[in-house]
Amino acid sequence: MIIVMEHKASPQQVDAVATRLQQLGFDTHLSVGVERTIIGAIGEKRPGYVEMLSAMSGVERIVPILQPFKLAGRELHPEPTRVKVGNTTIGGEEIVVMAGPCAVEGEEQLLEVAREIKAAGAHILRGGAFKPRTSPYSFQGLEVEGLKLLALARQETGLPVVTEVTNPRDIELVAEYADMLQIGARNMQNFTLLREVGHSQKPILLKRGLAATVEEWLMAAEYIISGGNHNVVLCERGIRTYETGTRNTLDLSAIPAVKHYSHLPIIVDPSHGTGRWRYVTPMAKAAVAAGADGLMVEAHCRPEEALSDGAQSLTPANFRQLMVEIKAVAQAVGRKSGSLTVV
Amino acid sequence: MIIVMEHKASPQQVDAVATRLQQLGFDTHLSVGVERTIIGAIGEKRPGYVEMLSAMSGVERIVPILQPFKLAGRELHPEPTRVKVGNTTIGGEEIVVMAGPCAVEGEEQLLEVAREIKAAGAHILRGGAFKPRTSPYSFQGLEVEGLKLLALARQETGLPVVTEVTNPRDIELVAEYADMLQIGARNMQNFTLLREVGHSQKPILLKRGLAATVEEWLMAAEYIISGGNHNVVLCERGIRTYETGTRNTLDLSAIPAVKHYSHLPIIVDPSHGTGRWRYVTPMAKAAVAAGADGLMVEAHCRPEEALSDGAQSLTPANFRQLMVEIKAVAQAVGRKSGSLTVV
Amino acid sequence: MIIVMEHKASPQQVDAVATRLQQLGFDTHLSVGVERTIIGAIGEKRPGYVEMLSAMSGVERIVPILQPFKLAGRELHPEPTRVKVGNTTIGGEEIVVMAGPCAVEGEEQLLEVAREIKAAGAHILRGGAFKPRTSPYSFQGLEVEGLKLLALARQETGLPVVTEVTNPRDIELVAEYADMLQIGARNMQNFTLLREVGHSQKPILLKRGLAATVEEWLMAAEYIISGGNHNVVLCERGIRTYETGTRNTLDLSAIPAVKHYSHLPIIVDPSHGTGRWRYVTPMAKAAVAAGADGLMVEAHCRPEEALSDGAQSLTPANFRQLMVEIKAVAQAVGRKSGSLTVV
Amino acid sequence: MIIVMEHKASPQQVDAVATRLQQLGFDTHLSVGVERTIIGAIGEKRPGYVEMLSAMSGVERIVPILQPFKLAGRELHPEPTRVKVGNTTIGGEEIVVMAGPCAVEGEEQLLEVAREIKAAGAHILRGGAFKPRTSPYSFQGLEVEGLKLLALARQETGLPVVTEVTNPRDIELVAEYADMLQIGARNMQNFTLLREVGHSQKPILLKRGLAATVEEWLMAAEYIISGGNHNVVLCERGIRTYETGTRNTLDLSAIPAVKHYSHLPIIVDPSHGTGRWRYVTPMAKAAVAAGADGLMVEAHCRPEEALSDGAQSLTPANFRQLMVEIKAVAQAVGRKSGSLTVV
Repeated sequence: MIIVMEHKASPQQVDAVATRLQQLGFDTHLSVGVERTIIGAIGEKRPGYVEMLSAMSGVERIVPILQPFKLAGRELHPEPTRVKVGNTTIGGEEIVVMAGPCAVEGEEQLLEVAREIKAAGAHILRGGAFKPRTSPYSFQGLEVEGLKLLALARQETGLPVVTEVTNPRDIELVAEYADMLQIGARNMQNFTLLREVGHSQKPILLKRGLAATVEEWLMAAEYIISGGNHNVVLCERGIRTYETGTRNTLDLSAIPAVKHYSHLPIIVDPSHGTGRWRYVTPMAKAAVAAGADGLMVEAHCRPEEALSDGAQSLTPANFRQLMVEIKAVAQAVGRKSGSLTVV
Repeated sequence: MIIVMEHKASPQQVDAVATRLQQLGFDTHLSVGVERTIIGAIGEKRPGYVEMLSAMSGVERIVPILQPFKLAGRELHPEPTRVKVGNTTIGGEEIVVMAGPCAVEGEEQLLEVAREIKAAGAHILRGGAFKPRTSPYSFQGLEVEGLKLLALARQETGLPVVTEVTNPRDIELVAEYADMLQIGARNMQNFTLLREVGHSQKPILLKRGLAATVEEWLMAAEYIISGGNHNVVLCERGIRTYETGTRNTLDLSAIPAVKHYSHLPIIVDPSHGTGRWRYVTPMAKAAVAAGADGLMVEAHCRPEEALSDGAQSLTPANFRQLMVEIKAVAQAVGRKSGSLTVV
Repeated sequence: MIIVMEHKASPQQVDAVATRLQQLGFDTHLSVGVERTIIGAIGEKRPGYVEMLSAMSGVERIVPILQPFKLAGRELHPEPTRVKVGNTTIGGEEIVVMAGPCAVEGEEQLLEVAREIKAAGAHILRGGAFKPRTSPYSFQGLEVEGLKLLALARQETGLPVVTEVTNPRDIELVAEYADMLQIGARNMQNFTLLREVGHSQKPILLKRGLAATVEEWLMAAEYIISGGNHNVVLCERGIRTYETGTRNTLDLSAIPAVKHYSHLPIIVDPSHGTGRWRYVTPMAKAAVAAGADGLMVEAHCRPEEALSDGAQSLTPANFRQLMVEIKAVAQAVGRKSGSLTVV
Repeated sequence: MIIVMEHKASPQQVDAVATRLQQLGFDTHLSVGVERTIIGAIGEKRPGYVEMLSAMSGVERIVPILQPFKLAGRELHPEPTRVKVGNTTIGGEEIVVMAGPCAVEGEEQLLEVAREIKAAGAHILRGGAFKPRTSPYSFQGLEVEGLKLLALARQETGLPVVTEVTNPRDIELVAEYADMLQIGARNMQNFTLLREVGHSQKPILLKRGLAATVEEWLMAAEYIISGGNHNVVLCERGIRTYETGTRNTLDLSAIPAVKHYSHLPIIVDPSHGTGRWRYVTPMAKAAVAAGADGLMVEAHCRPEEALSDGAQSLTPANFRQLMVEIKAVAQAVGRKSGSLTVV
């Protein structure tokens, strides 16, 4: 940690800060420049100290030096993590594709699309049973009934199931039916929920918050891992910017950034990332080219009847086309995709 | 709702959309322009329809016409709401000031600052017992012990208490000790939590999310009110932008916007809004001048020892000065502030 | 400047960086921590060095310590600058109000509104002759004809005139007619234009760029001042964020930030800042309460006929009301406003 | 254009707006809903009308229906545009790569890197002679001397040259030496400059502004095309967001968006887009996979000595590797790249 003192900080102020640092267990060393005095503090990282010291008289700012994440970081854990969901491995050679409807709406709707995506080569079925919606008057999901339908679809197709959990009280219930628990973007800093899924045995899909930095996202993963659950997969799903032409701005540079700082696998959701089905396939290909370990894609047999997010859902035909196109890109970057059975 | 068809939409596509709208119970009327056909749809608002119709073939975009909020909106409820917390009324003539430490750290720390802010004229004591922190290694709050200390401070000073609740499981517990429940910025779209505090009898302080629009914020209030709890106070606390010179960008235009669209009271938190104690008093004055109904300000007797947010906390002396300065501004805009006893 | 080396940087890499720094004329000192080695470099600031050194092998990042601005900064020039425009002084006790139409549209339109704002107590007349417009098909301004009308309005009312210059070729021409040259938000980093107005004798009104940090804005001022023109007034006019309820997000915390780092006066434009006339007066009051030295406000006798920005323009009646209301706030913060003659 | 009236708009207000629209030459038709009256206006698009009508009493908001761009749009010009620079065609089957140093620093530096990128298969040489820099104390470019060196490098390597023009006065001069004129991100809304390069015969590379929407960017292209110059190539180079881990946020969804709305070719600059050389190759591959027509990449033989942007520059070895990797991705998406002679 580096403490930059103000232009006119007095020797007494500098002294007080140095003394405080020593009391807190840091080794300190001073560097007196023409315009600024700087105090270097060497010692264990403790997050609270930055704010505390910022409040001392004569301090201009504090520059933390160390990464705030440990368990999610690459420094202590250089080899990439692989996460198993059913028989599928995320973070290996294969590009893993999760697909399905935004919301589970009924048995026929779910089974029909599940069979379609399975036939097209998807690996995991997604579908929301508990839906966090901006409006209390929007469809909120089928809840337990939705979970049961997901389990039924797994039985029918053999695809493992990922679905969102939004309430700490529901974790056990959802874990009973699902193979992977999703933490949605709006809950990325719901620390209560993060801590509790950290005690679950299920793999976790952690979506990036709407306005979260990559660092904050890795800190959210740190909450889960520090609870004992190492099976975390990150999912880039677009961030909020001033651009209104797309629903969010899909930040694909998060892929090399996550790969640089962390050992966790990362997948990309171009459906929420763009909000427009026309842009989903180009962005899916871009994600694979940039090094993503997988994709999460919304698909619906009749998007124009979807109770949620129809505008960004692919039809089965479009989804099959996506699977064909990403296969070529995956090969071009030395990856494999997919168990594609029939095109 | 207005449906804008694509430049080259076929008559069949236009027809299909119109028919669908009629099935959904809308009256429709067509307007055929040189470059675009537009379909107007008159009828009840139902949030899901926009996305569903967006997915129909030939549709360029949907323009919703009605406000998505009803209970939080001014149209059906033109007179301003007043919320009572203890003996204090928020939304009336008086500028209500909530102050106290970011986190409750111990009995002496809390009582000392509570007495100081009481003497300076604050109306409500704030202090965090459950702290949502970016890092799992930061101080997470004293939890139940913190709640008990807040109740003790209320007994000592007579100030009602506001504190954050982060877990649906803790609502009853927190409500036992606190006079007002705070929903933090990171939980503004934790819909589970919103729905559950909607069933509480306690007034709710709803902070604006880091990347929430004013409309989404009012929709979050709608969740609470639609659960039966009408005592909602909004709190602007800064939004996330590209500017790094301040912790957040305090969006004071949210004050006239909320006043225009809603009947709910709105207060401002310049401490989180700026992250720098030097900017707190100017921004507090600005908030009052723009029409805020109150303030939430972090104060600490020894900011340089604070376990959280020291850099943005006012000392008792600075807080007294703030109270003096906002009193003058409050008078200039026809408001009252405060019960200031000694300066 | 602090150079933070990577976790696994080799002694050779550390050495190479230290040697390079010494060649560039810096004194260096090493600090070897458990997880990172840090190199402190003391010496003159030179902007290019940061990027150059960032590219060296083993370097994680560079932390600049010194402010990049010198002439615009408070460290070498602690006393506040006052800028004279005609007989009006910006940066003194008085809140200076610039008002007028977005665009000069014709003689009658301009003279009528100029008389109204003069009667209401405004100090300076604003009006665009060269209009930077998003669309090439929008009204682009009356150009020279507009400048002549501004000069005529000055003669009629005695108000000095501020107007925008967008082309380096036009500086002399505009300076012939105007008392103050405005650099618009879209040209804040048009360095060619900045350098050339730095050679002008006229005071400059420098609007903040749509996505400029306060630091970049002060660097733009530095361009002008380093050209020899010290008469720079900053104007906050809202920044671009994800919020779509207002045209821009007016960042009033820029006022205390500019006051903290710089000696230059700062005024606020709540018309562009919000884009909605209803929000202009509350935000004008907020700006004055936060410490602004003045305001720039759009006024038009018939906003519904304005060729540009009608939605954010005040009618004469609304403008008079604004002048009354800010006078009270100005007094509350120890400032004076206005030469208000008749209400 | 749709005019949405306020909830309580009176019949007189509705009437006044309708009458005004008719005076302006629009056909109008009313739609009276339960909660809102809506006026549809059919007729020619004129940008200024939106703002003018917004200011009328009782108007809540105006919803424009038509795209604001005409010449840059796909509706009137469905087939893709191809732009020729020297013997290279941008917008055809081949992925065109522009590479070179951020700034021209000297003869040896330029020629050395020019030969390297030529050998690796680049098509066009980039290099800045006039450099827009945030600080007036940074290296501002070699100016005319830099242009001469670029021409020399072209002669040596056969590569056509693209370089930035920042001042309307320099257009002719730069056009004398360069094969393509670049409008930088900071000048994307320098309308004076746009209009003047619209009269040039040279192809234009138009970078996206730091905070420009895709729509505004296409409007900037509209300025150039409406001046008579149809040879416009767009360049996505990252937008400004809250994320600080990268220099900008590269918005690759701009590629399908531009392809959807416009016929202009689009290339991507991952160097400025990320600011970190490690992320350049993954993002270059992603850009090609998403459908970009080319790339602009910074390369420098000794990035650690670069006078500008070293941290984001590729070494010749890294650049060769990029060329190999994008070739594979280009083939996977049915494109060609490059004239790669030796690997």
